[in-house]
Amino acid sequence: MKCNVNQSDLSKAIGIVQKAVSVRTTTPILTGILMEVENNKLSLTATDLDLGIKTTIDCQSSEDGAIVANARLISDFVRKLPSKSSIEITTDEYNKMDIKCMKSDFVILCNSADEYPSNTFYNEGMSINMKSQALKRLIKYTTFAAAQDNMKPVLTGCLMELEQNVCTFAAIDGYRLSVKKEEVEFDGECNIIIPSKSLLEVSRILEDEDQDVEMLVSETHVSFVFDDTVIISNLLEGEFIKYKDIIKDGYQTKINIKTIDLKNSIERVSLLAREDKNNLIIITIEDDNLKIESTSEYGNAEENIEVQMEGDDIKIGFNSKYILDLLRVVEDDELSAIFQGSLNPCIFKLPENEEFIYLVLPVRIS
Amino acid sequence: MKCNVNQSDLSKAIGIVQKAVSVRTTTPILTGILMEVENNKLSLTATDLDLGIKTTIDCQSSEDGAIVANARLISDFVRKLPSKSSIEITTDEYNKMDIKCMKSDFVILCNSADEYPSNTFYNEGMSINMKSQALKRLIKYTTFAAAQDNMKPVLTGCLMELEQNVCTFAAIDGYRLSVKKEEVEFDGECNIIIPSKSLLEVSRILEDEDQDVEMLVSETHVSFVFDDTVIISNLLEGEFIKYKDIIKDGYQTKINIKTIDLKNSIERVSLLAREDKNNLIIITIEDDNLKIESTSEYGNAEENIEVQMEGDDIKIGFNSKYILDLLRVVEDDELSAIFQGSLNPCIFKLPENEEFIYLVLPVRIS
Repeated sequence: MKCNVNQSDLSKAIGIVQKAVSVRTTTPILTGILMEVENNKLSLTATDLDLGIKTTIDCQSSEDGAIVANARLISDFVRKLPSKSSIEITTDEYNKMDIKCMKSDFVILCNSADEYPSNTFYNEGMSINMKSQALKRLIKYTTFAAAQDNMKPVLTGCLMELEQNVCTFAAIDGYRLSVKKEEVEFDGECNIIIPSKSLLEVSRILEDEDQDVEMLVSETHVSFVFDDTVIISNLLEGEFIKYKDIIKDGYQTKINIKTIDLKNSIERVSLLAREDKNNLIIITIEDDNLKIESTSEYGNAEENIEVQMEGDDIKIGFNSKYILDLLRVVEDDELSAIFQGSLNPCIFKLPENEEFIYLVLPVRIS
Repeated sequence: MKCNVNQSDLSKAIGIVQKAVSVRTTTPILTGILMEVENNKLSLTATDLDLGIKTTIDCQSSEDGAIVANARLISDFVRKLPSKSSIEITTDEYNKMDIKCMKSDFVILCNSADEYPSNTFYNEGMSINMKSQALKRLIKYTTFAAAQDNMKPVLTGCLMELEQNVCTFAAIDGYRLSVKKEEVEFDGECNIIIPSKSLLEVSRILEDEDQDVEMLVSETHVSFVFDDTVIISNLLEGEFIKYKDIIKDGYQTKINIKTIDLKNSIERVSLLAREDKNNLIIITIEDDNLKIESTSEYGNAEENIEVQMEGDDIKIGFNSKYILDLLRVVEDDELSAIFQGSLNPCIFKLPENEEFIYLVLPVRIS
């Protein structure tokens, strides 16, 4: 293979696929990036077999071909070349890749493309079109609530439900549940569980400007297609928790509060809570005042915030981490919290964003 | 003790002393910060017994007193309070410190100031005045060349020599030597070895604008006094290497080269050199061209840079780390390299900065 490519294009493309490169693997070829030149296009592919990313950039090719290059070496080298310079890439029959740029000449030993798993990007199924910003919001407001450990693998993913032009993402880890909805132009039905890790990669690669994303859903995989990039992920098998049953209507206490005030206060109080490793904070709401307290062997902290309240007074305990995770994601100035007694889950909503609901289990306090 | 203090002042002061707080210590009291209020001044002190930092800020005090507070808790808490807000600090007879700020109330259990080592800032001796920017340059151009390990403790420090209004700093780790001179208004003599770690703290705390620094040198300690801060460090005992004998005059090959070109090229070539962990690069100078090469089991790299050369052709090996360390510090656009054959040290100088010399041992190549 032989082609000329722009340094900035190549560096950006490597950055896109790099997150799918296998780090720990029993298949060494997967620590590389598959580079394929065909007809003035250079495609880069990486996969760890759970997640695969492929992206294509323009090049001037004089000889088609394919090779697998060490991901770390080629990434570091290309990044350090002068920005926007022209790079000439040539490979020979011994799988040597020669990268020339101005007065730099870098020869690296590569692997044959024949050893790279083929067909990893084949996925045929239902096609769903979505706007990238809607997809990013769905991912942002739910993935943080998914389980981190693999005790129940299905909970490390987000449930995606499609019904009557509404797409719902839900994540739950046993202690909290996050549900976000967006309207989509698709009136079919769909019900799949996508690994959070894959969704976070999709979100990372999607640019800030709005664009169209096509999702292809088969029995076992989902792919996201946009611009010149395809991301394919396996789906998680299993039964997701019937989360709708958990969300109850009605309230005993209801408050509106400024997001930034609640975040700053809980962060300060948590300094002590974290020392005891249980992150326990106690919230007391009465007389339009929300008090947050924590106690540890190092001392105790108390914060007070003015709130608008409706309903009964309440005293309730939480693991502060679960509330802070939410507050670090929310961009709205205000949020509302709905309490149904100190032993039932607390529900957070955003007055400006009806399509979102977050539910946290309390910690029983004496 | 009881005082009111501005959040920004207190947060900055904690940041200054915090680096001297002991992390691993058999004396738990040293993991705290000594806070002393006297006559509208609040002093903060931290020491690990090798390095001590004390800084003083204004406050409105209504009761003098002293206490030792957990450094991490007080630092995190004060940093998270609203910027520039007024903080009220009160302690009681049970060593409880109560920090109130707006609607936040933080009570932490502290230790008695009586347990804190006293007299750690006592240092009487020769007084040397220096400009802070000159001191920062001396530190910046030498400390990186000091030994990192403790095999020869004396080499983890910088030699400071004063003679005839010139202050010289020298650091050597057995593979390279860095020497920097600055003029000072002091015509006495002095010859001490200061731990690099202490010098780096002094440099970090000194602001960017030029100011006067007073150094006090005794048999065992050196203190740096500026603004409302005192930094005291132990001195290293032992015989420093007679570095002047190592620097030879004359040259066989001499080049001038653009710093940025050399840095970028060595960084790229080192990507391969580092894989073999010896960082070996080979430099060949001929026909006004400097070629840098490296070879590893992963491939090989070659870079070429135009240079102005005088003298003989040369081929010489280096550990690239020792050259990159220099290039990451140098701000001058150009530097000159002086070679005295491929088995003798190479000397780097800055044409615009005669008071600096850097010497690197070559690696023998076959």
